[in-house]
Amino acid sequence: MHKQNSPVFALLLLILGTQSSAASKPESFTRADLAAASTLRERALADATAYSLVESLTTEVGPRAAGSPGDKAAVAWGLREMERLGFVNVRAAEAIVPHWERGEAEFAVLAPFPQTMPTLALGGSIGTGEEGIDADAVMVKDLAALTALPAGAVKDKIVFFTNRMERTRDGSGYGKAVTVRASGPAEAAALGAVGVVIRSISTSDARFPHTGTTRYTINAPRIPALAISNPDADALVRQFESGKPVRLRIKSTSRDLPQVRSANVIGEIPGTDRASEIVILGAHLDSWDAGVGALDDGAGVAIMMGVAKLIKELDARPRRTIRVVLFANEEFGTSGSLAYLAANEAEIERHVLGFEADFGAGPVWRLASRVEPAQLPVIDQIFRALAPLKLVRGDNAAKGGADLAGLSKRGMPIIEPGLDGTDYFDVHHTANDTLARVDPEALRQSVAAFAVSVWLGAQYPGSWERVAAPKTAQR
Amino acid sequence: MHKQNSPVFALLLLILGTQSSAASKPESFTRADLAAASTLRERALADATAYSLVESLTTEVGPRAAGSPGDKAAVAWGLREMERLGFVNVRAAEAIVPHWERGEAEFAVLAPFPQTMPTLALGGSIGTGEEGIDADAVMVKDLAALTALPAGAVKDKIVFFTNRMERTRDGSGYGKAVTVRASGPAEAAALGAVGVVIRSISTSDARFPHTGTTRYTINAPRIPALAISNPDADALVRQFESGKPVRLRIKSTSRDLPQVRSANVIGEIPGTDRASEIVILGAHLDSWDAGVGALDDGAGVAIMMGVAKLIKELDARPRRTIRVVLFANEEFGTSGSLAYLAANEAEIERHVLGFEADFGAGPVWRLASRVEPAQLPVIDQIFRALAPLKLVRGDNAAKGGADLAGLSKRGMPIIEPGLDGTDYFDVHHTANDTLARVDPEALRQSVAAFAVSVWLGAQYPGSWERVAAPKTAQR
Repeated sequence: MHKQNSPVFALLLLILGTQSSAASKPESFTRADLAAASTLRERALADATAYSLVESLTTEVGPRAAGSPGDKAAVAWGLREMERLGFVNVRAAEAIVPHWERGEAEFAVLAPFPQTMPTLALGGSIGTGEEGIDADAVMVKDLAALTALPAGAVKDKIVFFTNRMERTRDGSGYGKAVTVRASGPAEAAALGAVGVVIRSISTSDARFPHTGTTRYTINAPRIPALAISNPDADALVRQFESGKPVRLRIKSTSRDLPQVRSANVIGEIPGTDRASEIVILGAHLDSWDAGVGALDDGAGVAIMMGVAKLIKELDARPRRTIRVVLFANEEFGTSGSLAYLAANEAEIERHVLGFEADFGAGPVWRLASRVEPAQLPVIDQIFRALAPLKLVRGDNAAKGGADLAGLSKRGMPIIEPGLDGTDYFDVHHTANDTLARVDPEALRQSVAAFAVSVWLGAQYPGSWERVAAPKTAQR
Repeated sequence: MHKQNSPVFALLLLILGTQSSAASKPESFTRADLAAASTLRERALADATAYSLVESLTTEVGPRAAGSPGDKAAVAWGLREMERLGFVNVRAAEAIVPHWERGEAEFAVLAPFPQTMPTLALGGSIGTGEEGIDADAVMVKDLAALTALPAGAVKDKIVFFTNRMERTRDGSGYGKAVTVRASGPAEAAALGAVGVVIRSISTSDARFPHTGTTRYTINAPRIPALAISNPDADALVRQFESGKPVRLRIKSTSRDLPQVRSANVIGEIPGTDRASEIVILGAHLDSWDAGVGALDDGAGVAIMMGVAKLIKELDARPRRTIRVVLFANEEFGTSGSLAYLAANEAEIERHVLGFEADFGAGPVWRLASRVEPAQLPVIDQIFRALAPLKLVRGDNAAKGGADLAGLSKRGMPIIEPGLDGTDYFDVHHTANDTLARVDPEALRQSVAAFAVSVWLGAQYPGSWERVAAPKTAQR
C-alpha cells in the first residue's frame, strides 16, 4: 500500500476512530451501585468476618498440605463456613491432588566447621533414605553460574545455591529468585550432582527455612534438595570463604504417596439479570505444612469469603453471579485449578471477570487490571470509588495469580487489588506463617478494596470484553 | 535508746556526715587518662574486632552448650583468640559442667483440633521416653493461678502456663515471667501433674520456642517440661477457649549424661603500679544449643575481648590488671563462675571492680553502677567521658549479671554499661540467636562504652571501696 498522507485520508481516520471509540465507550455505574460500593467499603472497614475466618481456619484446621488430613479438614471447614455465611450452591468439586510426605530432614556441615542447621526439604523432592548422603560441596550463585562451571565440576557433589532474593512490594523479586528452587535440583542432577541445598527463596533474616516445590525433569536423575535459612546460608558461605574444603551431610525421609481425592470448595451469591455471567473470586485452601497457612493463603480465603458475605448483606442483589472458589492444591501444581477448568470447559466464556487473593493479608496498595484497553475507563471509575483507601493506580498488565491463570489464558479479564507484598516473603512457605502475622486492620482494608472492586465488577452496565492471553506468573 | 531530737545532736550528725564525706572524697582522673579514654572511644567506634570475633565464634564453633563438643571447641577458640590478640597469662581454668542432651521433642494437640507445634524441652528437663505422654490439659496463667486451683485439679494432667512476658528495655519483664519456667514444672509436679507446657519466656511473635533451665525440687517428682512459641501459645489458648476438653501429647528424649570437664578461659592485660588489683571483665562462652549464641553471649565475649584488645593497643598501660574471664556454663547453673570463685578464694579482695556483658549486642543506653555511694562522683566522671555516646545516667542499684554475682556478694563494686534489651528476648535462647541479629554499629558503640568505663575503672587514682551485697538477679 502507498503511503497515504492526504488531508482527506486523515479526516477519514478521525471519523472512523471516533465512531469506533463511541461503539465501545464504557458505560457508567449507576448512582445506586456507587452508593452501595461506599456502603460496602465502610462496612468492610468495620467488619471482623475475614479475621474470624482466618483465625478459625488456622486454629481449627492448621496446616493443610495437599493430600494430608488437614486438606480434608479444610474442605469440610470451607463447606461449613460457606453454608454458615449463607452462600448458595455450596459444593465440593473433586480434584485429584498429590500426596507428598515431608518426613524428617537434616542438614549438617561436616567440614571445615561442623554444625547442624535447620532445614526443610523442597516440596516434591525425593528422600535420601535413612543413611543420608555425605559429599563434598560446590558453591554457586545461581543457574547461570552452575552452567558456567567446567565439565565435571559438580560430579558426585552437593551443589549449594547462594543467590539471595530481593525484597519488593509487588513480589517481583520472587519470580527472579525462584528459578533456583524450581529448576536447580534438576539442572544440578543433569551435571552429575548428588544433592542440592539452596538459600531459601526468602527475604527474612530469621532462621526459618522456606519450602516450595521443585520440578524434576525426565532426563536427569531425581536428587534430594533442601533449603536452609538466610542466616544459615550466610554462615555456610563464610565456611566456604575460609578456603577449606566444605563437606556436607543431607538427609531427608520425604516420600511420594498415591494421589488423593480432594476438592475445590465453591459457593455463590447468585446474580439477577446477568446471573449467567460469573465473577469468580479465587483463593486457595491448601497450604504448606510447616506453618498454618495464615498468609498463604488463609488470608486470601478469608478476604474472598468476607467480600461475598458483605455483598450478600447488601439490600441490593448483584447483577452477575459472584462465585467464590477455594481451590485445592495451589502449592503443588495447581491441580485444583486444572480440575476446575476441565469441569467447566463448557462454561469458560461465562467467567466474565476474575479476582484472586493469594499474596498475604494486605493492605491493598494499588489497583491494577488486565482488561481490554477500551474498558480502562471502567477501572478508572472503580479506582475513584476506592479513593478513601488511598491506593495507587496500577497498570493494565496485571499477571494475576496461579489459580486463575487458566481462565486468564482463555481470555477472562481480571481486576487486581494489589496486596502489599513487602514482608510477605519473610513468612511465605515457612513455619512462621501463623495468625500472628495477620494484621487485622490491614485485612479489613483489603476486604474493603476487594469488596468495592468485586461489587462494581458485578454491576458493570456494559459487557466485560475478552482479553488477549497474558504472560504467566509463577508463584 | 531514747529519741534524740536536740539541736546539738543534729549539729553533731551534720559535722560527722561532712567529715565522713570529706574523708572519702573521690579523686579526679588525670588529663592523660581522660585523653586515652577519648582515644579508646573513637577507636572503638571504628574497630571491627568485636564483630569479627562474634562472627568467628558463631561460624567456626556455633552452638556450645555446656558439656557438648561445641563447648570444648569454644574453649580452644577462646585460648587461640586471646593468644592471637596478645593477651597474657592466657589459660584454661577447669570447671565441671553438666551434660544434658536435648534429644528430640514433640508437642501435639490431640483434641479438640489436632495440630503439632514446634517445641523445645526446657533445659535439664527429663524425657518422656519414646512412648511420650498423652493427657488432658489444664490452662493456668502463672504460679499464683496454679496454686489457687482446687485440690486435685491438675492430678494426672498436663499443665499449660499462658502468662506472657512484657517487653522492656532493661529486661525487667524477664525476671517477672521466668519464674514459671524455673519453678512451674516442680510446682505442678507437687500437685500431681504429669507434664508441663509453657508459653515461651519471650517477647517475639515469631514461631521460635525458647528454652532455658528449669529447677526440680527434691520433694516432687521430676516431670517433662516443654516450651511453645507465642503464636502457638495463642493458638492453644484459642483451643481452650472453644470450651471443649483439650488433650495434649508431649514427647522428649532428653537425658542427663555424666558431668564433663570444661574450662573458664582467662587472659589479661597486666597492670602497672596497681597490678595486683584486678578489674574483671566477665562474659560467658557457653550458649544454648538451639541457636549459635550470637547474642547470648557471643556478643558479650566479643565486647570484652574487643575492649581488652583496644586497651592493650594504647600507648599507656593500665594501672590495674584487666582480666577477661570467659566463663563456662552460665546457662546451666553458673558452675564456671562457682569454679572461678573457689579457685580464687584467696584473692577475692583483689577483684576490685567488675564488668559483665551478657545481654546482647547493644547499643549501650545507660550507665548504672553499684559502688559505695561516696564514690558515685567517680561514676559521674566516667559518665561525662561517655557523653558523645549519649547515654542515660542510671542509678546505683545495678544488679549485674549471673557470672559476677558471687564476686558481687563478696563486696566487689560493679559498673554497668547497660545494653539495650528491648529486642533481646525476641531471640534469647531460641534457634534464631544468629549473627544476623548482631548489628555491627551497635556492637561497636557497645565496645566504646565498655572500653571507656573499663579503662577509667582501671585508672581510678583512688581505691575502689567494697560495697554491700546486692539483691541477686536471675537471667
